[in-house]
Amino acid sequence: FSADYVSLGIREPVYEVIEVRSNGRMSTKKISRRQLLKSSGLRLRDTRSVDPSLWLMNSMPSLLVREQAILVNLGSLRAIAMYERVLIFNYNSPGGKAFLGLLLPRLNPRNINGGPAMPFQLEVVEAALLSRILRLERRLMKIEPRVATLLEVLPNRLTADVLEQLRLSKQALVELGSRAGDLKQMLIDLLDDPHEIRRICIMGRNCTLDRLSDNMECSVPLEKQIAEEEEEEIEMLLENYLQRCESCHGQAERLLNSAREMEDSIAVNLSSRRLEVSRVELLLQVGTFCVAVGALIAGIFGMNLKSYLEMNAWAFWATTGGIVVGAIAGFFLMYSYLKARKILDPQATTAEAWDVHHVS
Amino acid sequence: FSADYVSLGIREPVYEVIEVRSNGRMSTKKISRRQLLKSSGLRLRDTRSVDPSLWLMNSMPSLLVREQAILVNLGSLRAIAMYERVLIFNYNSPGGKAFLGLLLPRLNPRNINGGPAMPFQLEVVEAALLSRILRLERRLMKIEPRVATLLEVLPNRLTADVLEQLRLSKQALVELGSRAGDLKQMLIDLLDDPHEIRRICIMGRNCTLDRLSDNMECSVPLEKQIAEEEEEEIEMLLENYLQRCESCHGQAERLLNSAREMEDSIAVNLSSRRLEVSRVELLLQVGTFCVAVGALIAGIFGMNLKSYLEMNAWAFWATTGGIVVGAIAGFFLMYSYLKARKILDPQATTAEAWDVHHVS
Amino acid sequence: FSADYVSLGIREPVYEVIEVRSNGRMSTKKISRRQLLKSSGLRLRDTRSVDPSLWLMNSMPSLLVREQAILVNLGSLRAIAMYERVLIFNYNSPGGKAFLGLLLPRLNPRNINGGPAMPFQLEVVEAALLSRILRLERRLMKIEPRVATLLEVLPNRLTADVLEQLRLSKQALVELGSRAGDLKQMLIDLLDDPHEIRRICIMGRNCTLDRLSDNMECSVPLEKQIAEEEEEEIEMLLENYLQRCESCHGQAERLLNSAREMEDSIAVNLSSRRLEVSRVELLLQVGTFCVAVGALIAGIFGMNLKSYLEMNAWAFWATTGGIVVGAIAGFFLMYSYLKARKILDPQATTAEAWDVHHVS
Amino acid sequence: FSADYVSLGIREPVYEVIEVRSNGRMSTKKISRRQLLKSSGLRLRDTRSVDPSLWLMNSMPSLLVREQAILVNLGSLRAIAMYERVLIFNYNSPGGKAFLGLLLPRLNPRNINGGPAMPFQLEVVEAALLSRILRLERRLMKIEPRVATLLEVLPNRLTADVLEQLRLSKQALVELGSRAGDLKQMLIDLLDDPHEIRRICIMGRNCTLDRLSDNMECSVPLEKQIAEEEEEEIEMLLENYLQRCESCHGQAERLLNSAREMEDSIAVNLSSRRLEVSRVELLLQVGTFCVAVGALIAGIFGMNLKSYLEMNAWAFWATTGGIVVGAIAGFFLMYSYLKARKILDPQATTAEAWDVHHVS
Amino acid sequence: FSADYVSLGIREPVYEVIEVRSNGRMSTKKISRRQLLKSSGLRLRDTRSVDPSLWLMNSMPSLLVREQAILVNLGSLRAIAMYERVLIFNYNSPGGKAFLGLLLPRLNPRNINGGPAMPFQLEVVEAALLSRILRLERRLMKIEPRVATLLEVLPNRLTADVLEQLRLSKQALVELGSRAGDLKQMLIDLLDDPHEIRRICIMGRNCTLDRLSDNMECSVPLEKQIAEEEEEEIEMLLENYLQRCESCHGQAERLLNSAREMEDSIAVNLSSRRLEVSRVELLLQVGTFCVAVGALIAGIFGMNLKSYLEMNAWAFWATTGGIVVGAIAGFFLMYSYLKARKILDPQATTAEAWDVHHVS
Repeated sequence: FSADYVSLGIREPVYEVIEVRSNGRMSTKKISRRQLLKSSGLRLRDTRSVDPSLWLMNSMPSLLVREQAILVNLGSLRAIAMYERVLIFNYNSPGGKAFLGLLLPRLNPRNINGGPAMPFQLEVVEAALLSRILRLERRLMKIEPRVATLLEVLPNRLTADVLEQLRLSKQALVELGSRAGDLKQMLIDLLDDPHEIRRICIMGRNCTLDRLSDNMECSVPLEKQIAEEEEEEIEMLLENYLQRCESCHGQAERLLNSAREMEDSIAVNLSSRRLEVSRVELLLQVGTFCVAVGALIAGIFGMNLKSYLEMNAWAFWATTGGIVVGAIAGFFLMYSYLKARKILDPQATTAEAWDVHHVS
Repeated sequence: FSADYVSLGIREPVYEVIEVRSNGRMSTKKISRRQLLKSSGLRLRDTRSVDPSLWLMNSMPSLLVREQAILVNLGSLRAIAMYERVLIFNYNSPGGKAFLGLLLPRLNPRNINGGPAMPFQLEVVEAALLSRILRLERRLMKIEPRVATLLEVLPNRLTADVLEQLRLSKQALVELGSRAGDLKQMLIDLLDDPHEIRRICIMGRNCTLDRLSDNMECSVPLEKQIAEEEEEEIEMLLENYLQRCESCHGQAERLLNSAREMEDSIAVNLSSRRLEVSRVELLLQVGTFCVAVGALIAGIFGMNLKSYLEMNAWAFWATTGGIVVGAIAGFFLMYSYLKARKILDPQATTAEAWDVHHVS
Repeated sequence: FSADYVSLGIREPVYEVIEVRSNGRMSTKKISRRQLLKSSGLRLRDTRSVDPSLWLMNSMPSLLVREQAILVNLGSLRAIAMYERVLIFNYNSPGGKAFLGLLLPRLNPRNINGGPAMPFQLEVVEAALLSRILRLERRLMKIEPRVATLLEVLPNRLTADVLEQLRLSKQALVELGSRAGDLKQMLIDLLDDPHEIRRICIMGRNCTLDRLSDNMECSVPLEKQIAEEEEEEIEMLLENYLQRCESCHGQAERLLNSAREMEDSIAVNLSSRRLEVSRVELLLQVGTFCVAVGALIAGIFGMNLKSYLEMNAWAFWATTGGIVVGAIAGFFLMYSYLKARKILDPQATTAEAWDVHHVS
Repeated sequence: FSADYVSLGIREPVYEVIEVRSNGRMSTKKISRRQLLKSSGLRLRDTRSVDPSLWLMNSMPSLLVREQAILVNLGSLRAIAMYERVLIFNYNSPGGKAFLGLLLPRLNPRNINGGPAMPFQLEVVEAALLSRILRLERRLMKIEPRVATLLEVLPNRLTADVLEQLRLSKQALVELGSRAGDLKQMLIDLLDDPHEIRRICIMGRNCTLDRLSDNMECSVPLEKQIAEEEEEEIEMLLENYLQRCESCHGQAERLLNSAREMEDSIAVNLSSRRLEVSRVELLLQVGTFCVAVGALIAGIFGMNLKSYLEMNAWAFWATTGGIVVGAIAGFFLMYSYLKARKILDPQATTAEAWDVHHVS
Repeated sequence: FSADYVSLGIREPVYEVIEVRSNGRMSTKKISRRQLLKSSGLRLRDTRSVDPSLWLMNSMPSLLVREQAILVNLGSLRAIAMYERVLIFNYNSPGGKAFLGLLLPRLNPRNINGGPAMPFQLEVVEAALLSRILRLERRLMKIEPRVATLLEVLPNRLTADVLEQLRLSKQALVELGSRAGDLKQMLIDLLDDPHEIRRICIMGRNCTLDRLSDNMECSVPLEKQIAEEEEEEIEMLLENYLQRCESCHGQAERLLNSAREMEDSIAVNLSSRRLEVSRVELLLQVGTFCVAVGALIAGIFGMNLKSYLEMNAWAFWATTGGIVVGAIAGFFLMYSYLKARKILDPQATTAEAWDVHHVS
């Protein structure tokens, strides 16, 4: 047993898998890792990418092509495609179910309707890619109208609820965009590597692939020709799913960018409104301060102490007049001072336009 | 029927298309998917990128070249170009109309004026690209002066209205930049793939393309030469539209960046103004507090209780003097304390300049 | 006339150009588009990148090499270089003037001083590149000291004026960086494409270029050798201007990044200062509240209503003492409560250090 | 001694290393740099990447292949793998210990169980990569559930503690993502360079590698075949670890992006709540101001001065009524003014929808 | 003289340089540009990258290889390496001094100690690269502990001083990262271009380089072999410095990212604390408002006007009770209203969890 698994404290696991044969027959099996390695010709470390016990660490989609097997790891689907059969590991996961739901009708001979049947391993790869992309597309179709509504609604309804919905949509888009981007990258890498594609073609055939020149050599000449046609078929298949995946990724990125720009704009908008509120508050505080000074003077004259002004006929009116006029004058003095210092002025900067002109 | 469409709940759709022949004749047709596949030699999955019922998921522009057909998916234009005819799917969409408006005059023999006529499928590709780019350019020409005005106007008029206009312009630029970027990427990919370009050239000719060496072989030697000249023509055509597309994309990105930087600067600007408002508010609150303490003392002496100071001649003036002097002294004490703690000081940090010098 | 121009509502334009011949002779000409296409062997769509009536949409620099002409579109310079002559379109633009100012001395035989003369079309390309880069460099040399001063000055002088200057500098740098980046990309693309460079070399010579192998074939062997030497010359020339352009772009990006980081830091700085101001405000409001409660009590005892305490000798002092002690006690109670809830505490978070250690 | 080390003030260092032989024997040794260079055929500057005294500057993972030695620098593991032995430098570091813990069981013949033994240097490289990736994966598995919990919890509990935990998680993810990204880049570079991989294969064999054609030439034909098989083995090994590393990197980036978006959303959320608080504050200040004006009037009438109104029966009620009605009227006047200026209105912008429509 | 220099207003400059010969002899020289061009076989435009009078515009590191000279432009070091000698331009700059300090000991025969001497131009290139990288590394070693301390200290001490230090560190890291990145890019470009490396090898030898096939042809076969060995030596040398440079760049980027994330987190943290302060302020304002209303009522009853309630025994206590109860009731009414509107509630959003689940 490898030190890797030892160190994770796992020994000789037994996997429960569903096996689907090329004739559409489906059966549940228990298979130990030792058996699996033997029957598929895989290396120990290869199994890592389909081992459900190492679930968390396998988030990156991959399609590893080995001599006798294709290791499929797409979302929650983990499978090993071999000549004329496929093992599905966590078949109860959404990814596993969606894959089975797409694969089985394809194997049904009645559904072929006319077109030439593709070899089994291609059917598996296509079903796996399709089930993954369909799930991403459905997810996007669900989020898109919501985000569109939010972008429409938001500037006029900055309530906490709507902001929370924007946040949730952004989180969903980050994840969706990242998943679609990973899948897209995997497809691009695969398309860029004719060696891998050729290995898919010769699987289960009496052909060998020369390592250096990448030329196929088959015992039967006809087989070589079929394999070459299949190669083109795979390329077109991958290209098709790549395009769908790119659409999905591009749309998710576009929505996410729109949502981000929206959030930035909202932040500035809120900032500008708060400034306006602050300015009015300031004005009120200036007023309150002036009134408070007046009230202090009034309070002083209200003390039960003798000022010897009590008896003057003019004292009340003079003081009253003084307080009122003083408060109003104080207010306007401070108001004009703040205007002059541009603290209460909405057009704060003058931008005397420094000569930073455009480069034409 | 494929599991894909079954799973989406769609079966054997009939498309309503406009067919334009190379002589400029135009007719509306209904065509079932089965017929379409038969006449164009396409695979089922190929049709996805032109199927209007899968509208939402096809946002990425593409120009897929198959053996007997070119699948065009540009904005809202969906078409299949075949030898001597083109099928336009959603012909009522803005993309479809613009395409027809550009294609038909080109097919009119009177408009050729001198220059050699291009083969029909090239006319289709050019009309499709041109109609798409023209729409992007018009869109940009509409947004550009607005953004320029906003950038000019904004620093002096931070009103909610102007901010909202900035937000809308940014959203429009995000979308425009993303669309132009996708189109640009598609053109670059096409130019990087001589195989695809050659497949366009040999369409409708008695030529075959060797898969490995990418060499054309034609039954008629002259045809080969024409095809090679056409190849150069296509490259120059794509290069031209790539350049226009890059201009469009670059300009949109530049405007978007300017708008973003503007928004960031506005945010800092607003922040700095709010700080100034807060500082004056603080000052006023210090004043109000001092006055309030004075008013409290005055209020205490105003109580209808006997303090036995009532009769002292000096009490009124002493108390009044004490309140006024105390309030003013209290104000300046607090003011100088806040100055010392650098809370009221605009030059808050001293930056005693740590020796982080430049790497020269 | 092409559908493109028709749709833009322009028909058969006449261009006013300056023609410079390889002997330095300069003349103003009017040339219709039809004539231009004939004499230069260009396609209709090629002229788009030099057509001044399509100014706005041509912001991306380009150097398109056609069989008999080089289309130059750099900033506001639009020109067509042909064998032994060059047509300058918008010769009154800054770009056009700068180009003429650099090209004419180069064509003057007295200025060659020793070194071998370069072929005319290379002189044109070099003068065009040089005039463009010089303008970018001068622009940068003007902005750089300003930004350096701002970065020095800003942390200590956060006034609206200085912030506005930072904003304007950032806008200028965004544009400058984008222009230099576009030019750089154009030069890289050109250097990556030996085919284009070779086409410049054979222009005006009796040579042809094989499309597939990119080999030159000349009628005169000597010409081939000269063309090959010229190819190396062009590469070194482009490399040189690429390096200058990269310097310019890199410096603009560096300054822009510094300005951005500065702005972010200022935002946090302002935020932290506002928090401090808020805290002092809060303290004052606690004080004001307590004083107000005291004043309310004093006011109550100041009502012209009988409380039957008026005559008690101790009532005044007891009430006064109660008010003062109560206000101060209230203040400290609230103060310590806010401290305990960490609202008035500058060291708000304790960060009991969760075990998120470094990966070493 | 090289000027490099001289300038750092280090001369002829002696390294304490652990040597592991291919039979699993382990011994501690002291080795001077001079000896090391002699026995390994390395250049002086090569040793830099494993020299523990230059720790800080070696943060980038590397696997430099020299003629007789592979220099391993992964995290805190520094080792030199040579034919049939490996020197581990800082064997007490976590990286060194983890490597030893994985390497020793692999060399134990009892653990081979069936599969063909890999050559020693491959065992070393695999153990080194595995130990590094396992540590990154464990780190990620520790952070992931925390971040997931935070993303769940945060919108409802914006306490300083939770924000601090988010900050710490982000810091950890930045570091983890950067480390995994560096490792990923190193693996991609290695896979892209068949020359390096071949050099690993021929290490310790009687083979030479032609520099230009990259062809192996071995004295024994069998050796060549084995080396070629090994090459494929190394590629698959590197591919496997690349995939694990990509998963790790992708997951860290995804979590970091989610955390960033969360923080941005929180900032906007906080901003919007502060605005709401400010609005209520403003309302209260309007109220307080009106009440203060009323109190001023009352205070004026409370002065111990003769207004000659004292004796009027209606004066008290008139004044009281005037104050109350005036205060309430003042409040509503100001309230409606602020509403009209849209300062107290949550739906501040009207967005009269400018015709910025979508590009379809 | 070239129009370039004319337009900058510079004519026929004389450079003061230090010349170092391969035997270590050093001399100061004055050399006019004309002489320089003659002796080095350079073009006029080549000298631009080492001309100290064009300092500002040469910020991008470069190593231009010409037929007889290597133009070195690294930081403040400007030099031209020729066969058996090197000219150093601005020898008093830090870069020039560091270079001389590293080069001279290398040329001293006593320092060779054993290893084979490298050709002179390689010594020059290595000394130049080493001196540049050492300066970047020392810079980084100075900043790193500071940033680490800041990241540790900051969350608990958000003072203006610490924020200013963070800002300065970020500015230094931006610059350092950008410089290291430029150097890294230069090394990658050089390693990707075998043509340039070969030109370094044949410098000063009787070899020529075929332009098309990049094959060396030497008059002496031995020379060819030596040149080929040197080529490998240069590649390993560049690879080594690339790795150091990548470490430096990666570390600077990592620190900068950490500092950025820290700043973002601080911003949110400050925002959340300000909100809390605002909430308490709001509460106090509610209280103050209620007390002010109470004080107004008390003030009204304190007016020197007859209300005819003066003589009622119960009037004082009723009014007092009314004021106190009214103020408290008013406070709690407003408090519960604000709670209900979620303005005073820390758990503002409910996030009724919209069904945006994860894509697994």
